[in-house]
Order: sequence, then C-alpha cells, then structure tokens
Amino acid sequence: MLRAKTIEIPESSRKILESNSLGILTTIRHKDGLPSSNPVGYVWDGESIGISTIASRVKYRNLLADPRVAFCVIDGNDHTRYVEIRGRATLEPDPDRSFLNRQFRRQSDGHDAPPDLDPPDEQRFVIRIHAEQVSSPVLYGGRFSR
Amino acid sequence: MLRAKTIEIPESSRKILESNSLGILTTIRHKDGLPSSNPVGYVWDGESIGISTIASRVKYRNLLADPRVAFCVIDGNDHTRYVEIRGRATLEPDPDRSFLNRQFRRQSDGHDAPPDLDPPDEQRFVIRIHAEQVSSPVLYGGRFSR
Repeated sequence: MLRAKTIEIPESSRKILESNSLGILTTIRHKDGLPSSNPVGYVWDGESIGISTIASRVKYRNLLADPRVAFCVIDGNDHTRYVEIRGRATLEPDPDRSFLNRQFRRQSDGHDAPPDLDPPDEQRFVIRIHAEQVSSPVLYGGRFSR
Repeated sequence: MLRAKTIEIPESSRKILESNSLGILTTIRHKDGLPSSNPVGYVWDGESIGISTIASRVKYRNLLADPRVAFCVIDGNDHTRYVEIRGRATLEPDPDRSFLNRQFRRQSDGHDAPPDLDPPDEQRFVIRIHAEQVSSPVLYGGRFSR
C-alpha cells in the first residue's frame, strides 16, 4: 500500500518530537477531499510516530480511504521551531490497548487509560506514520521569537 | 472558484481564535498531493481568518493549484480545546504590506514587520480562509486536561 520510500527522522527533529506530547495530525476527508487537522497525543519511539485512535473516528475512516497524512509538532520549549512529517499511514490493531496505555502514560504523568475511556466493543488502532518527507525550519527564520 | 457555501464561525470558536496568535495551516501539495502543515501567524478580524504569505512559498503555489485548506488553533489557555476550520482559500494581493504589518503587530507586541523581512521584489499576499465546516470539540472529552 505504501508507494514511496520512507526516510529516517533527522536528529534535530527528534528533539522536537521529544519536547511535546501533542501534535497536529492531518488526514484527507473521504467524504469531500478537504484536509482535516486536529491535535492528538502521540508516541515517538525513536523510529516512528504512533497515534492511538478508535475505529469510529472520522480520521480512521479517512485513512482507510486515503493513507496520506501530515503531522506537525511545535517545539514545546521554543514556539518558533517545529517539525513537519509528510507521508502515509498504516493502521495497526491494538486489541489489548497496550499502545493506548503507553500513549496515555506519556501524556498523563504515568497513569494508564481509564477502562471506561471507550464505548463497549470499540476497537483501538495505532495510526503508524511512515515518513516520506521531513521539514524542520524555524518560523520567521528565528528573527522574531516570542 | 469557491464551490461550497461559506459559514459563520460560532462564538465558542471565536474565543479560541482570539486566545492564540499561531495556528496550523494545511494545504495540499501541488507536486504529490500530500497534505502539508505548518505553524503560521494569522489575523482573525471577527469575520474570517487571514494569513500573510509571499509568492515564493510552497503554500502559495499549492493554493493556486488547489484551494482546499484546514486551519487548526489550539486554545492558548486550555490545550484540550481547539477549533478546526475546513474550507477553501483565496489569495489577495497585499502590495502596501498593510495586512502583513497588522499580523506582525498582533504577534510581536505592536511593532510593524521589518522593511527587510522579504527579499527585494517579493510579493506579499493574504491567504483568506472561507470556512465551509467548523469543528470545536474538546480533546479527550475534557476528562484528561493537562
């Protein structure tokens, strides 16, 4: 399904991925082709980005129809720096919620996701991002940090 | 060029737009169709979003080829709240840089953009977002704010 070669995330971008726990994920809406962006928690494991989702979400259905994604993280320590990853995503089942719990621990000072987070019979998946292009410029060339 | 009806931004979303000066703009890359997201300053004038850009930027060329955009702002006071605007954008010339200066004053405690911000003969434009769909949910249903 992946049509392009994936690339490694450069060192400067890794630091930004480690400095925040929220990113903006963009998918392409299967209904009308408009891009759709929203903040998401994520896990950066040193190789790739994973994002927990459920099968009833629009982003899950969008990705089944079109795997193209962008993922953008602003440096938690310096808002003029960011990393943008463009590529395609695959969907991996997470039946025992081990990935969800890992993501939650990162976002919530170490506790697992509550058992009643999802509706009964909801299916958890991991959105795995396969980077094809990575940009990590400095906003305004770093001249106007605030 | 605009194929869909634009809608008004609801009151709850207006407050989020006023609470931050950076948003994430997503365009569709004209070269390969991948979505592309990056942080941008913006002006919310009470009716629509405007974003200053220059004609040499990839996002300008993307928008000439495909006007579809998403624009996402996270509440500056509560990171579990956000607004997402989906729609299409038009490009308005800004020859006297009056819009650029307005955007800069908002981001930089009131001073105009420096005269040497752009290369000589660069052309400034305003990316004007025409909202077709607006979402303003609370991340994790507000249960796990941090």
